[in-house]
Amino acid sequence: MITENQNVLLTIEYDGTHFSGWQRQPGKRTVQGELERALSELCRSQIKLNGTSRTDAGVHALGQRASFTASFGIPVERIPAAANNILMGNRLAGTGDVRIISAETVPPEFHARFSARGKKYVYRIRCAEKPDVFLRNYRYQITKKLDINAMREAAMHIEGTHDFRCFQAAGGEEKESTVRTIYRIDICEEGENEIALEVCGDGFLYNMVRIITGTLVETGLGKRKPHTLADIIAGRSRQSAGHTAPPQGLYLAEVYYDFL
Amino acid sequence: MITENQNVLLTIEYDGTHFSGWQRQPGKRTVQGELERALSELCRSQIKLNGTSRTDAGVHALGQRASFTASFGIPVERIPAAANNILMGNRLAGTGDVRIISAETVPPEFHARFSARGKKYVYRIRCAEKPDVFLRNYRYQITKKLDINAMREAAMHIEGTHDFRCFQAAGGEEKESTVRTIYRIDICEEGENEIALEVCGDGFLYNMVRIITGTLVETGLGKRKPHTLADIIAGRSRQSAGHTAPPQGLYLAEVYYDFL
Repeated sequence: MITENQNVLLTIEYDGTHFSGWQRQPGKRTVQGELERALSELCRSQIKLNGTSRTDAGVHALGQRASFTASFGIPVERIPAAANNILMGNRLAGTGDVRIISAETVPPEFHARFSARGKKYVYRIRCAEKPDVFLRNYRYQITKKLDINAMREAAMHIEGTHDFRCFQAAGGEEKESTVRTIYRIDICEEGENEIALEVCGDGFLYNMVRIITGTLVETGLGKRKPHTLADIIAGRSRQSAGHTAPPQGLYLAEVYYDFL
Repeated sequence: MITENQNVLLTIEYDGTHFSGWQRQPGKRTVQGELERALSELCRSQIKLNGTSRTDAGVHALGQRASFTASFGIPVERIPAAANNILMGNRLAGTGDVRIISAETVPPEFHARFSARGKKYVYRIRCAEKPDVFLRNYRYQITKKLDINAMREAAMHIEGTHDFRCFQAAGGEEKESTVRTIYRIDICEEGENEIALEVCGDGFLYNMVRIITGTLVETGLGKRKPHTLADIIAGRSRQSAGHTAPPQGLYLAEVYYDFL
C-alpha cells in the first residue's frame, strides 16, 4: 500500500549542542540535514522539510515542528520509529541527539512555518557561584543572584504588541515589519538556583528571545531599571537593549496551530 | 612567596562524554592529560597527577581525587580558580567539561590512590518507553520497567567480602587478589522513571560496577532469579555474570580517606 503525496507534520526534539543549527548547509551537520537524509532514505525520494523555527547552533528543541509532502509505503504513525532507527544507525556520526516524537497527517495547504499561530520558547538560567560541568551546554550559567521581581516588572513592558526592532540582531533577514505580539513572559523559579523564562509570542525576530533574556538578566543584576524597558522598546535601537544571551540555555518548547 | 614541594589533593568533577577516559594517553584527550597540562602551566614545571580511579571513556565523576607534589607561588586554596581559568581558556578544544572543585594540603606520604579506603560509584538508569535525547550521555536508558525488589534481593548477595572474579572484565591489569569488600549497594527510585544504584566498596576490579549493574538490570528484567547471584559469585567465571552496562550512566561519586 502506497499513500500518495501525503502532507505530514512532524514533532521533533533535539539537543542542539553538536548541530550547526536547524537549517541545511552544505558540509555542515544540521538538524534539517540529518532529518532530510533519514526521511529521504525512508521514502526513497528526495525529501525537503519545512521547519517552523530555524534555531541557531547550540539551541535545543523540545517541540520543533516540520512538514513535508511525500508518498509512503508505511502508515504515517510508523514514520517516527522507522526514521529514528535510521538516525540512530549513524551512531558513529554522533547521533542520538535528534528524535522524531510524532507524525500526523495534515491538510495539503498546511505549512509548518506559515500555518503556525505562535511559539513558546523557554530560556533556562542557572545562578550559582560555581558552574556545573554537566549543564554547560544546557543552561546560561550566571555566578550571581538575579532579582526576579525586577525581571518580572521589566518583562511586563515587553508583553503586548510592539515594534520590537530593539530586540532584533543584525544578520537576520530583512523583515517587512518588526511588529510582533508577545502574549506573555513567565519567569519561574525552579528549585534553589534555576530560573526558567517562558516567552510566548506570535512570532520572533532574529535572536529576539536571546536579546530579551540578556536584557532581563542585566535588569536582574541591577544594571538596568525595570521601567527603562519601555524606553528601550520605544527607541527601536539594538544598541539600547542588553547583550545576546548564549544559545545553550534556549529551548524551542512548543508551536501552536489553530487546528491542533 | 614560594611553597616548596607541597603535596596537594584535588577534588575534581567532569563530564566524561568527550574524554578518552581518565588516564593520560599520547594523542588523546584525557582528563589526566588536560589537568596535567593546566597544572604544569600554573606551576611552571612538569606536573604528574596520581588519580584515584582510572575511569573509562564516557564515565563521569562528581568527586574524583588526584594528588601531586609541586612548588607554588600561590596559596593552595587558590589552585582551583587559577587552574580552572587555564582549563576554560581552551574553549575551542571543547573544554568546560572538567573542573577542580577544591585543593588541600596533605601529608608528604599521602597518595590519592593508595591512601583511599573506599569509593562510592553511582550508576544512573532511566526506564521509559522513549529515550530522552538530552540524557543520552548521562543515563543507561532502558525501554522496559525494572523489578526493583528483585534487584535489591540480588544486590544483597553481592554485599560483603567475596572473590569477585566473576565481575572482572578481561583487559584489566592482572591483580594479585580479586577479593574485595562491597560495603553496601543501595537501589533508590528517583522520580517516576529513574533508578540510582549506589555501590560503596573498598576497591573495584576492572569494569566491576558496570558488570554488577548489567547483572542487576538483567535480574530486574526477569532474565535472572535474584538467588542465582550467590552461584555466579561462587563460580568465579565472567561468563556467568551479566552484560557490561554502558559507561554513560556511571559516576564516580566519592572517595573515602581515613583522615578526611
